[in-house]
Amino acid sequence: MPPISRESAFAWIDRGLDERDRAGLTRTLLPRDSADSLLDLAGNDYLGLSRHPAVIGAAAEAAARWGAGSTGSRLVTGTTELHHELEEELAATYGTEAALVFSSGYAANLAVLTALTEPDSLIVSDQHNHASLVDGCRLSRARTEVFPHADVWRADGLLRAHDGPALVVTESVFSVDGDVAALRELHDVVGAHGAALFVDDAHGFGIIGPGGAGAFSEAGLVTPPDAVATATLSEALGTQGGAVLGPRRVIRHLTQTARTFVFDAGLAPACAGAALAALRVLSREPGRGKRVRLVAEQLHEGLINAGLVVNPPGAAVLSLPAGSPSNAVEWAAACRAGGVAVGCFRPPAVPDSTSRLRLTARADLTEQQIAQAVRVIADAAPHHLRL
Amino acid sequence: MPPISRESAFAWIDRGLDERDRAGLTRTLLPRDSADSLLDLAGNDYLGLSRHPAVIGAAAEAAARWGAGSTGSRLVTGTTELHHELEEELAATYGTEAALVFSSGYAANLAVLTALTEPDSLIVSDQHNHASLVDGCRLSRARTEVFPHADVWRADGLLRAHDGPALVVTESVFSVDGDVAALRELHDVVGAHGAALFVDDAHGFGIIGPGGAGAFSEAGLVTPPDAVATATLSEALGTQGGAVLGPRRVIRHLTQTARTFVFDAGLAPACAGAALAALRVLSREPGRGKRVRLVAEQLHEGLINAGLVVNPPGAAVLSLPAGSPSNAVEWAAACRAGGVAVGCFRPPAVPDSTSRLRLTARADLTEQQIAQAVRVIADAAPHHLRL
Repeated sequence: MPPISRESAFAWIDRGLDERDRAGLTRTLLPRDSADSLLDLAGNDYLGLSRHPAVIGAAAEAAARWGAGSTGSRLVTGTTELHHELEEELAATYGTEAALVFSSGYAANLAVLTALTEPDSLIVSDQHNHASLVDGCRLSRARTEVFPHADVWRADGLLRAHDGPALVVTESVFSVDGDVAALRELHDVVGAHGAALFVDDAHGFGIIGPGGAGAFSEAGLVTPPDAVATATLSEALGTQGGAVLGPRRVIRHLTQTARTFVFDAGLAPACAGAALAALRVLSREPGRGKRVRLVAEQLHEGLINAGLVVNPPGAAVLSLPAGSPSNAVEWAAACRAGGVAVGCFRPPAVPDSTSRLRLTARADLTEQQIAQAVRVIADAAPHHLRL
Repeated sequence: MPPISRESAFAWIDRGLDERDRAGLTRTLLPRDSADSLLDLAGNDYLGLSRHPAVIGAAAEAAARWGAGSTGSRLVTGTTELHHELEEELAATYGTEAALVFSSGYAANLAVLTALTEPDSLIVSDQHNHASLVDGCRLSRARTEVFPHADVWRADGLLRAHDGPALVVTESVFSVDGDVAALRELHDVVGAHGAALFVDDAHGFGIIGPGGAGAFSEAGLVTPPDAVATATLSEALGTQGGAVLGPRRVIRHLTQTARTFVFDAGLAPACAGAALAALRVLSREPGRGKRVRLVAEQLHEGLINAGLVVNPPGAAVLSLPAGSPSNAVEWAAACRAGGVAVGCFRPPAVPDSTSRLRLTARADLTEQQIAQAVRVIADAAPHHLRL
């Protein structure tokens, strides 16, 4: 037998790269310059807090006081008084008994889905849920049933047909299309079946609800004993990390059993400090959430008036159907050439086969910047996409 | 039918909390004070870089220059020139063509196991592998076969019986017991079968190999085309994050397909900046890795001389069998009362049913601190554990 070439071990990879190239689905990492002058409508820094002096200052102060890392799992050396303080204030803001901070929103979502289900549980999951939720369902030992997007009636039917613990999972504001879930109805449904509700509030926290307090407040759920939410520290709070918000018994259970908590290094102090500072800015300036929703409405109105198809934004995310992947790539590139960064979403990052531009509103955009964005995006649009 | 109480949705949780309490397996979050005077032999800040002025300064500078967060997925707005620079220097230090940075080591491990396997792949995984590797195996679509710890012959047999792509997975330095994998032998075995090797180098990078360059250098693997490694930025580099190191085609493939890369927010600039600064300290002071191994040997010798059972450390981790969970908890508490923080590992965080104390050496420990640690740990040991 001839010797096997070591080069062949990963040779199968090249086929996939070639296929992706031909389908127009290749992604490119474009490193930003710190002096980048693009108008950013692609990032998730909704409240404009990532560059807020109080937030940046708190990151530096936390690194100086606590070190550049947490040095270990939260259960060993990785919990500091700073983490504890952040968790107390997150829970108070959100309106839950307790909170638990993770190194990412992804890790928080995996934690909820794996640790709050048992092998005899049923997970009832919205079809448009984020990849981290889908992965959490796959990693859990429970059975998962997917319901058609936003179809509360179908979620009810799935719960009715199941005997045992169940968890209904939805985003509050769907990350790609920006539409909002009917949380009050879903909460009624889980209540009728003794099931639990899990809301991924990554794109709602800081933006919806009074003072940006998030999806539970927006839906009028007051310290619900049968619901948990996750939020990110990387979106409205402008840094990195994730959090689970819920009843004390749930949080206590996660500290004991959630593998992405127990076996992961704790969040870096710089990120915990930045998130805490951002939370306090939001508390002092509770109008930031309202402002970002207004900016989103203005962008929507401008783009509609320019003859484009845009979803009505439920929070701060706008979605523009762009047709084929190559249409989307060309449109996004033309926007960039015009000075505006927009998100370009292609399969598998879209819930159907339609590629999209994804725009995000920011609380700190000026009227002039909004007008500029509308003009550039409309001018760059492929002709067949205009009404 | 009587109405179902909403309180009942998570009632099942309490049973598990009670059972865990009775088995002595309850974990407690102990927030550290920043003025904590405990001698830390529990954290993973092996090189003592978490509080190095250059590392802390770089974290602050990066936050000021790039913001407190990366603002989005690495594929949208979350890649900066700082991330790019870090990846270039990580690859150069490690001796691979390329590197890719993630928000955590957990995310990096999930990425490799899900994106570098196909449904017809076989994963051959060491029995003592870390939880993040186990979760990666479960999340992949591939079949996983576990081989008895360190049994290269058995790994070879599993590869021999499989027809199709295969990935052998091991830690370089096992995180709980601190023993070292036979990488050269494993690399010979994968080579004979056209398979690939994946080494989780979380507890080796910065410590083993010339200048702390890690497991590939230690094993004499030079830019291997059939092997990838993961490293953490949260251990030797003293901050937060993870990295995959490997051939360029593999890294390119991960940027396209790894869900924990594509769908996660990018690493916070403060962490990227801190990691880059730590890497440069290591390059200027290449003896830090050797120093931490010497400290580990001194701790080992002292504890053996005091009549305790301790594994011979392969790198910077020492493991002391402690018997029952309650023995381990009491021993760790007595160490803490004596001023020394040690890791207390109980099921399910141990690879068998034996609870352990886990000690970590640090490059910046003095002779006096080593002697103090030995004295306190030996004095606190349960009598039946002394020889």
